[in-house]
Amino acid sequence: MSKLVENIGEAIRKTGLKDGMTISFHHHMRNGDHVLNMVLEEVAKQGIKDITVNASSIFDVHEPIIDHIKNGVVTGIECNYMGSKVGHAICEGIMEKPVIFRTHGGRPSDMEKGTSHIDVAFIAAPTSDDMGNCTGKIGKSACGSIGYAFADAMNADKVVIVTDNLVPYPLTGASIPEVYADYVVAVDEIGDPKGIVSGTTKITRDPVGLRMAEYAARVIDASGLLKEGVSLQTGAGGATLAAAKFIKEIMLERGIVGSFGMGGITAYMVDMLEAGCFRSLIDVQCFDLDAVRSLRDDPRHMEVSATQYAGVSGKSAAVDSLDVVLLGATQVDVNFNVNVHTDSNGYIMGGSGGHSDTAAGSKLCIIIAPLTRARLPLVVDRALTISTPGKDVDVVVTQRGIAVNTRYGKNKELKEKLIAAHLPVCEIEDLKKKAEELSGVPASLPLSDRVVAKVLYRDGTEIDTIKAVK
Amino acid sequence: MSKLVENIGEAIRKTGLKDGMTISFHHHMRNGDHVLNMVLEEVAKQGIKDITVNASSIFDVHEPIIDHIKNGVVTGIECNYMGSKVGHAICEGIMEKPVIFRTHGGRPSDMEKGTSHIDVAFIAAPTSDDMGNCTGKIGKSACGSIGYAFADAMNADKVVIVTDNLVPYPLTGASIPEVYADYVVAVDEIGDPKGIVSGTTKITRDPVGLRMAEYAARVIDASGLLKEGVSLQTGAGGATLAAAKFIKEIMLERGIVGSFGMGGITAYMVDMLEAGCFRSLIDVQCFDLDAVRSLRDDPRHMEVSATQYAGVSGKSAAVDSLDVVLLGATQVDVNFNVNVHTDSNGYIMGGSGGHSDTAAGSKLCIIIAPLTRARLPLVVDRALTISTPGKDVDVVVTQRGIAVNTRYGKNKELKEKLIAAHLPVCEIEDLKKKAEELSGVPASLPLSDRVVAKVLYRDGTEIDTIKAVK
Repeated sequence: MSKLVENIGEAIRKTGLKDGMTISFHHHMRNGDHVLNMVLEEVAKQGIKDITVNASSIFDVHEPIIDHIKNGVVTGIECNYMGSKVGHAICEGIMEKPVIFRTHGGRPSDMEKGTSHIDVAFIAAPTSDDMGNCTGKIGKSACGSIGYAFADAMNADKVVIVTDNLVPYPLTGASIPEVYADYVVAVDEIGDPKGIVSGTTKITRDPVGLRMAEYAARVIDASGLLKEGVSLQTGAGGATLAAAKFIKEIMLERGIVGSFGMGGITAYMVDMLEAGCFRSLIDVQCFDLDAVRSLRDDPRHMEVSATQYAGVSGKSAAVDSLDVVLLGATQVDVNFNVNVHTDSNGYIMGGSGGHSDTAAGSKLCIIIAPLTRARLPLVVDRALTISTPGKDVDVVVTQRGIAVNTRYGKNKELKEKLIAAHLPVCEIEDLKKKAEELSGVPASLPLSDRVVAKVLYRDGTEIDTIKAVK
Repeated sequence: MSKLVENIGEAIRKTGLKDGMTISFHHHMRNGDHVLNMVLEEVAKQGIKDITVNASSIFDVHEPIIDHIKNGVVTGIECNYMGSKVGHAICEGIMEKPVIFRTHGGRPSDMEKGTSHIDVAFIAAPTSDDMGNCTGKIGKSACGSIGYAFADAMNADKVVIVTDNLVPYPLTGASIPEVYADYVVAVDEIGDPKGIVSGTTKITRDPVGLRMAEYAARVIDASGLLKEGVSLQTGAGGATLAAAKFIKEIMLERGIVGSFGMGGITAYMVDMLEAGCFRSLIDVQCFDLDAVRSLRDDPRHMEVSATQYAGVSGKSAAVDSLDVVLLGATQVDVNFNVNVHTDSNGYIMGGSGGHSDTAAGSKLCIIIAPLTRARLPLVVDRALTISTPGKDVDVVVTQRGIAVNTRYGKNKELKEKLIAAHLPVCEIEDLKKKAEELSGVPASLPLSDRVVAKVLYRDGTEIDTIKAVK
């Protein structure tokens, strides 16, 4: 018995993929991913139409999907993040059905709750055996964690493992076990290693970024959370990485050992683990080669499913135990709602990812963003797109001031602590005013009434829509 | 947020356990298990009645369940194996509802298919954090694999983790993740280490056992399966272990590297891994301390769920890739049906465990058993209980002859190969005759018509019943 099939075309035929079905992909191959494009090309070749693509993220490398949309092969997209190339086309109205945006926690939970059905999942696996035991930890296309793919494997009707490193049965240390795999396809290359891991994430040297990072670190310190057992998630942005560096220095100086660092894991989090700042790392996605190596070799560095990371369908998720998260924003409004979906021209260029999941779960959610970008203000009356609701945001840190969210009856004590720590605390309206002084009040955008995307909160409810750009 | 509750009593109250519900347990604590007894004592104390206990196995240490049955606390038992103490009581008719016997693969699969519902699972966990990430690999009560508990965790409405080694969050390397855990209880002792791992499994020195072992090894060799990539499961019995020793010698001599050894894992399988006879071990349960150590320290030694080991609800299971399994029997009948449930007096003293799962999945299923036991013949006209159907059995090895199952149109070539290898091949009827010459024809047993247990095959269908002893 073997589940090996000749090629992706044969796998598609064997799954019984038909017009109108939903296929899924995970994004650990990031901007180096070949699998989504290979599969869609074959779907198109077989004359299958009206396919919904549920991918944890759509990157610029997936630009060919635009033609598949125009040709009627793809008629729906569901994702947690969409890069600007496909995002731009979507906002110009190329697809009739709105894109469904979920969060990294909401996506697997909607599958588990049955509100999101996957007919066929295609799982890019850097190493697999012929029965479908597979992992991202080893192989020429090693990407580390494949945590976003667990739910697809566990919930799709049919599961196809696509690998470029087929090993003899049984693969030990598999992340996804054979019980979920229907077919295994060996291909030459599931991705371009250069795109899979960026390897270039760097701490910012920009003085604005460094000032924000320092403020953020001081906010965490003043909050009282920076103590034994503290847990922290940072993104891969230059300013949040710089904040992590400041936090590391404080932790080492005071001998504080945290419980876990979490997130998409970067070399900086690995460095903090190895320096003794944390007892463990919780990893749903590796951002660079150091993270891949650490996940493979260090038993303190654990791979988790997206459900365990951030879902709402399990009995708990790691975000529920998270103390502090540092997040970015393209816009924040006066009610602390955050936009990470659209740019200032209204075009899609991102998505929640784990933004609203970690904001909701953490004790302290800090947004770090410069007061203006491309001569447009960060703070506005109403965020163009609400990605993360204001109720889950605690502090907004800019280079010109720090606003504490005391709406919703919380954070009064925190605000006093930050003032006592001589941090430049101000009101969110002050930040708006300062930003507008620098960049002027932006003209309202020429958006049509046509909805091109719906934004679902982690619990599956719709929290906003995105309109086509005129 | 923490899932810690004060004690088992509080956990039971919080789960909402009520009369008529089903609670589940796994058996990796084996004859040292404290958890099943502790829980039932508390259930009784709280006045809850009419409980069905679904335990992967019932051992002699669980004798107190007899009083709970008599008192109406427990009115149903479902298990894959039952030791003779409770088995004896069941066969005397103390419980109105028949015991439901499943296989190690059928039990999790029935849960996954929804044909077996668990209201509350109690999981004995040698180490856990306060959110329920847990493992059997470390802790004072370390038992190694907790593979039988995965399905309980994943499918029960409520899950209570019972541990005697609570560690700070997050436990890395957990076997069962927090997403499945509702409550965590810390107790003094989840088991008696002396009973958890026997540590005493020994290769037989009995000349009868050694002869059978040698025959079995020669059968495997003659079958042609003993080549590069071969996979093997043996039990923990003295004769099968001796057979493993003979096989090891052949493999080392010829430089054969097998793919995996599987099963309940013993020191002998670990020894074969470390000697290079296998590339890996697939472990659903550890039988001794060497197996526990190896599972903890050797990445080639992998823990699997019962579904991945032997289930029918997944897309495949490891048994589907198994070449050879060596199994025992209390009786074999002329149609090659095997009894491992009842002794020759009709009393329950065992169960399928993985017997029929591995028999069905393997390419070559060898039954090793002495021709007579306690002056009763091994081979009979009709097995008192059919545990494993004859269609899945290939060869019966006794010290006085080897019968090849050529019924069902298979194994004709195998029979010729064994004859060519000068093995003492005979018909199953010849074995019956020889056995009866030694021990006489047994008188028929005084069994009543009352069904005290039903035996379900791995697919959930009933293949036999067990009657009360008069």
